[in-house]
Formats: sequence, structure tokens, C-alpha cells
Amino acid sequence: MRKFKKILSEEEKNITTALHEEISRLEPVVQPMVTHVIKAGGKRIRPLMTVLMAKALGRNDHEVYSMASALELLHGASLMHDDVVDGAEKRRGSPAAHTVFGASRSILAGDVLLASCMRIVLRSRNFDIIESVAVAAEKTAAGEVEEINNLRNPALDYAGYLRIITGKTAWLIRCACEIGAMSAKASPEQIAAAANFGLELGVAFQLVDDALDIAPEKVTGKPTGGDLREGKVTPLINFYMESLQGKERKDFMQGFTNASFSEQEIAAIVARMRELKCDERTRELANQHLRKAEECLKLIPAGQEHDILFSMIDYIRDRDH
Amino acid sequence: MRKFKKILSEEEKNITTALHEEISRLEPVVQPMVTHVIKAGGKRIRPLMTVLMAKALGRNDHEVYSMASALELLHGASLMHDDVVDGAEKRRGSPAAHTVFGASRSILAGDVLLASCMRIVLRSRNFDIIESVAVAAEKTAAGEVEEINNLRNPALDYAGYLRIITGKTAWLIRCACEIGAMSAKASPEQIAAAANFGLELGVAFQLVDDALDIAPEKVTGKPTGGDLREGKVTPLINFYMESLQGKERKDFMQGFTNASFSEQEIAAIVARMRELKCDERTRELANQHLRKAEECLKLIPAGQEHDILFSMIDYIRDRDH
Repeated sequence: MRKFKKILSEEEKNITTALHEEISRLEPVVQPMVTHVIKAGGKRIRPLMTVLMAKALGRNDHEVYSMASALELLHGASLMHDDVVDGAEKRRGSPAAHTVFGASRSILAGDVLLASCMRIVLRSRNFDIIESVAVAAEKTAAGEVEEINNLRNPALDYAGYLRIITGKTAWLIRCACEIGAMSAKASPEQIAAAANFGLELGVAFQLVDDALDIAPEKVTGKPTGGDLREGKVTPLINFYMESLQGKERKDFMQGFTNASFSEQEIAAIVARMRELKCDERTRELANQHLRKAEECLKLIPAGQEHDILFSMIDYIRDRDH
Repeated sequence: MRKFKKILSEEEKNITTALHEEISRLEPVVQPMVTHVIKAGGKRIRPLMTVLMAKALGRNDHEVYSMASALELLHGASLMHDDVVDGAEKRRGSPAAHTVFGASRSILAGDVLLASCMRIVLRSRNFDIIESVAVAAEKTAAGEVEEINNLRNPALDYAGYLRIITGKTAWLIRCACEIGAMSAKASPEQIAAAANFGLELGVAFQLVDDALDIAPEKVTGKPTGGDLREGKVTPLINFYMESLQGKERKDFMQGFTNASFSEQEIAAIVARMRELKCDERTRELANQHLRKAEECLKLIPAGQEHDILFSMIDYIRDRDH
């Protein structure tokens, strides 16, 4: 990504300007909460992908930035609710919104934000774009419900895991790419390629994220084995379980299901997962999706934006924190 | 309403059919929760108003019912979140969704539902209708945030109170009437009249609801003085405060602000409110809005639906539980 740094910082500036413009148009009572969540930062990956895809396909005007910023707000709405759901104290190093404004206000402000996003994308006067965003909002929340339904369920297979991460993570990135292509009035094939690029990239992103669960805390900034503690079934867990037999397997399943592992046991499991290269094998699964994403890009016209989108594949592949 | 009973029961049947059709199209993981909330019942006032307004203005087909049912779902989404926000154990006599499915699932399923409503109204292919629903969703949640911001704030004046109830209650009823008229391709004047009818009716509905706070529990089924206990500032509180002076007033404001009233004090305040006819005076405020609603109906063509809409004015005026 380094060689695109200047372009990316330029785009980030434009996105931030559009974001603040949209926040200033929100219902006044929710502006402090939304500002808090948006100011906490993040890489603005979703709006960036909308803008890059729209530009790659020939569209380049101010409206693209406001549409793109709607996706960051939708992501923000989702984070506000997630933090209440998870009882998270922090979000990107800052206090989570609900610890500052209370859970009730966070829930309701998230609702305002979700509806506001629909209003922003309505300005596109493009039914396909509006539908894409509504579907993404549905899929994201439904994926999270499905994740909750499968917490501490070691019987969840890879297909089930893929369904969950496609909903909770990949669909919104898919949407970001799709509406970028739609706004550029690209061909149906190009729109489908853009959408699939986002989907595959999103799935790979989550796989890498889950692989990083056994990376050292000093590298990622997150406690090692967090998913194991929270009872999230990821490929790491599946690979680890495959290595177990008989009583050992039964004990693990029981401890995982009942959340009864001691910190010592967690550390031992993480160490064994590293020996078994569960993370590398998870990254290999991510690579399969990244190769598909690469294929999709062939339908996107060559040029600077295409190259930046391509570099995102490397960025996700090589991500180590 | 009695003479319209047959028509209303027919419409309710059609609305229920459309509702279940829409629920069956939702993301499967949220269907049990949505069914739970919708089955708890309610008068389906909002979809009923959409259908009646559409029919009064000449539209009558199946699509109106599915659009109307979207508003009941939006109302359901709002109730799911409200119950979490209020920590309510019951909703219309049934266990509140979050007590059955957990707060996390209720928050997320509410999000799915909100987004699904947008998808349903998208089928109208009418930008004005989609915008009306998005705005209603925004206003409803923003009104609730403003209500929370003003809990136990005895300085909240009538204008502030009106702003809150317009958001949290009236706007969705306004939307129900407005999109009914829009779907019938009524004139801009008729659409505005339909919207204002809903707005005035919604404000009056909430005023009467608040007046009923000092009615006996055996009549309303709700504990007397609930708003007083929860710290909601309604006209009852304002009228009561006007009757107080000096230390008495100061003591009340302190007790209200600090939630420090004993049950004995609550009972004494309620008794005094009754003597001062705070409820009747609140109902008189409602009547002012009902008269405005009556005016609005003059622009809606005469006929059976017009008459039922008119009868709703009487229904709200005379409501005693």
C-alpha cells in the first residue's frame, strides 16, 4: 500500500469531510454520540472501497463521497450496538459509546443512524443502491444473531462459520464495492464482479482476523485467545479439535461449551494451536478467498484505482496485527 | 367504532395475513423473535391507518397491505429495543422478547427488522414513501433519546414535551397516514392533510395516554403514577407543579429529580392531581389536537373509510383505559 499512500490519504480526507457533513445533518440529539464513535477512528475501509470502485469504473463526483460515508455510519451504528451486546468497555482504545452515554442512548442512537444511512443513500435515487444497503444492514445484524446462536457450539462446521462471517463482516464490504460500481453505472457483469470482490475480500479479512487470535498480545494489541475465551468457533478451533481424540477431545469440547477453561489451560491450548500451525492453515483458507477476489478484479478496468484495490489483497494477506 | 366492527375485523385479517407473509420472508434467524413480538398483539393501528387512508383516496390492492405491515414491523422493532432500554419484563401481558431471547438478540433482531422494513417499502418503487418511512424511523428513535435526556427534568416545558411525543409516538402514525395517501397518488394537499391528520391524532393519543397515568390501575391495567415513578415529565406534572409554591414546590422538584418519593408520597400526589383535574386538563390539550385532525379530514374524500378515520378521533377522545 505504501506507494499509494498519498492517494489514500487524499481520499481519506475527502471521506472524512463528507462524513462530518453527514453527521451535521443528523438529528441533533444523536450527533454527540455519533461523533464519539466516528472520531474513535478506524481505517474507513468501507467508504474507501466504494470510492475506489466508483472511480475505477468512471464515476468521480462529490455524491460518491457522501454515499460512501453512509456505509461508515452504518458500520458505526453496528459498532454502537455491538459494544452494548458484547459489553465492551473500549473501542479502538477509546471508551465505548455506551460507557459514556449509557446503553439506552447507544441503542437508540444506533437506530437513528441506521435509518439516517437509508436517507443518505436515498439521495442516489437508485433503487438498486438503496436495496443493496438495506440488505447489507439486514445481513450484518442477522449474521451477528447467528454468531450468538452458535457461541460455545463446537459442532459448528466450516460452512456454518462461513455463513456467519459472510453476514457479520463480508456483506457490508460487498455492499461497499457493489454500490460503488452501481453508482458508476457499470455493466451487470462488472457490478457482480465488484460485489464478489468485496465479499471474498471480506471473508478473507475475517479469516485473517480470526487467525490472529493466537498471535502475541504485544503484536496485535488484543489479548491472545480472546475467541477461545468468548466461545467463538473459528477454524482455529476446528483445526485444533481435529488433532484431538477420545477423552482429550471430549474434555476440550466440555471446557469450551461450559466456558470452564482456566487461564493456564487457555495458554496451553494456544501453544498447541501454534505448534499445529492452526493460524497458518486458517490463513491458507483466507488465501483461497483472496485468489477469488483477484479473479474478480479482472473485470475492473486497469488504472490507479484498480491497482490500489489489488494492493488491498496483499494488505489483507500480509496483515500481522 | 362499533358500527365499523365488521370492516375493521376484515381489514385486521388482511393486515395479519400480509404481516405473516412478510415475516416468512425475513432472515430465518430472526423469525422466532419477530413472531414473538408481533403475536403479542396490539391494535395494528398504524397499518390500519395506512390501509384506510389509501382506500379513502382510491387505492385498493394487495401491495397496500404489505406496505402497511412494514409499519407494524417497524413499530415491533422499536418495541424490541424499547423493552431492552426500559428493562420491561412484559409487553402486552406476554414476556418481553429480551426476557425470552436475551437482550443481545433483541437488539440485533430489532436491527434486522428495521432494515427489512426499508426493503419492504422499497417494493413500492416510490422515493417519497421510502423517505417517509426512513424519516419516521429516525424521528421515533431520536424522540426516545430526547425523552431519556429529559427524564426527571421538571424544567421541561410543554413545547419540549410536544417535541418529544411528536418524535417518539406521533411521527410513525403520521408516516402511516402519509404513505397511505402517497400510495394512492393523492394530490400534494391531500398528502399533507393525511400526514397532519396522523400527526395530530398521534399527539392526541399520547396526551390521552399520559392523562390515564392517574386513572385507577383496575381500569387501565397499568400501575397508577407510573410516569411519576419513572420521572417522565408530562402535562400532569406541569399542571401539578403550577399549583405548588415556595417550599412545597421546591420539595416536589427535589423528590422528582432525585427519584426519592415514597409510595405514600406518590399516592398523595396522584390524589392531589385528581383533585386538580390534571388529567381532564391534559385531555383538553388532546382535544385541541383532535380538532385539528378533524379539520385535516375535510380534504379526504367522503365515504366509508373517511367515516372510520373520523371515528378514530372519537375513539381517542373517549379512551378511558
